[in-house]
Amino acid sequence: MFAAIQAHQSRQSIMNFCSHCGAPVHVRIPEGDNLPRYVCTACATIHYQNPKIVAGCIPEWQGRVLLCRRAIEPRYGLWTLPAGFMENGETTPAAAARETLEEANAVVKDLELYGVFNLPHINQVYMLFRGRLQEGQASAGAETLEVRLCEEAQVPWDELAFPVIRETLELFFEDRRRGVYPLRMSDIMRGADNRIEVRRY
Amino acid sequence: MFAAIQAHQSRQSIMNFCSHCGAPVHVRIPEGDNLPRYVCTACATIHYQNPKIVAGCIPEWQGRVLLCRRAIEPRYGLWTLPAGFMENGETTPAAAARETLEEANAVVKDLELYGVFNLPHINQVYMLFRGRLQEGQASAGAETLEVRLCEEAQVPWDELAFPVIRETLELFFEDRRRGVYPLRMSDIMRGADNRIEVRRY
Repeated sequence: MFAAIQAHQSRQSIMNFCSHCGAPVHVRIPEGDNLPRYVCTACATIHYQNPKIVAGCIPEWQGRVLLCRRAIEPRYGLWTLPAGFMENGETTPAAAARETLEEANAVVKDLELYGVFNLPHINQVYMLFRGRLQEGQASAGAETLEVRLCEEAQVPWDELAFPVIRETLELFFEDRRRGVYPLRMSDIMRGADNRIEVRRY
Repeated sequence: MFAAIQAHQSRQSIMNFCSHCGAPVHVRIPEGDNLPRYVCTACATIHYQNPKIVAGCIPEWQGRVLLCRRAIEPRYGLWTLPAGFMENGETTPAAAARETLEEANAVVKDLELYGVFNLPHINQVYMLFRGRLQEGQASAGAETLEVRLCEEAQVPWDELAFPVIRETLELFFEDRRRGVYPLRMSDIMRGADNRIEVRRY
């Protein structure tokens, strides 16, 4: 669920106390390592932090793609594809299908991995699957204001929630014109001047 | 680095105290959520836990594949591909190249995503890239006893460290015979009887 983004980016990534024993942590490079980590001052537990997977779907139906208008921050009111943090115990396509069900009350079948997008500045990897929207049925879930099945020309390009959504849709419609969908990978980064840079592989 | 696996699987996943304020946590389903989470009893911070990405490489040189014999637990002495936990701030191919450099002192170029393997029972997603091993050069890194460039018949099939390594190599050599490398995805799970089950998509 996207609602989790803010929590992940703020309180969760800054660590003050050891989650194992409750003592304060400090930042140091453990022996045999080469990166600074949070290490407990009492029990010496090393607390690794790693990127998170955002799994999502491009639900397709009769040449159109299902978009969701966000009912939550960040980017309230802007358009996105159904996507959210993968949960423990899931597979990546199961996570993409669950997010699609939660955000758009929509069932997707025949999922195929289409795009892997690295967002190193926010420690996320997006994994987007193409999926067949069953019977074209969808409606707004709890985190969604409305859903819309869009042809390429109907996509609200100026009201998309995230750069990764624009990148996914641009690549998808480009590939759809050719009728082939190779795996796509891009790095999407925020540069020194705060502008988004996209590097396609 | 694979050394981190045990830490991830033991102390890190069980939480006793809030890393934000140091108070005890309890397990509950937050409002608007549908899964149990660690929640702080004092400051109410919700501590999400999510799967980790293990990025790795299939380094290729003149029809052979570079394998590493592990100098660390788990699976000390068994053979693997260079792979390890992706770090914050990295892209997935950068993580795969770094692990290859750390474990086998080897430089890989032209990385292409080849396999995505879901290991839901241990909350991991492996992302394996094919890569060209520069000048066929490699040697044992700190976590490696020895390295070996193997033709298919030279792979020590009975001494592989993890089921995901076997799955990757089986698929890779199958595809190499045909000369095409479609993106591969499998779920690799431990069943109720403790046996490994592999489900290819």
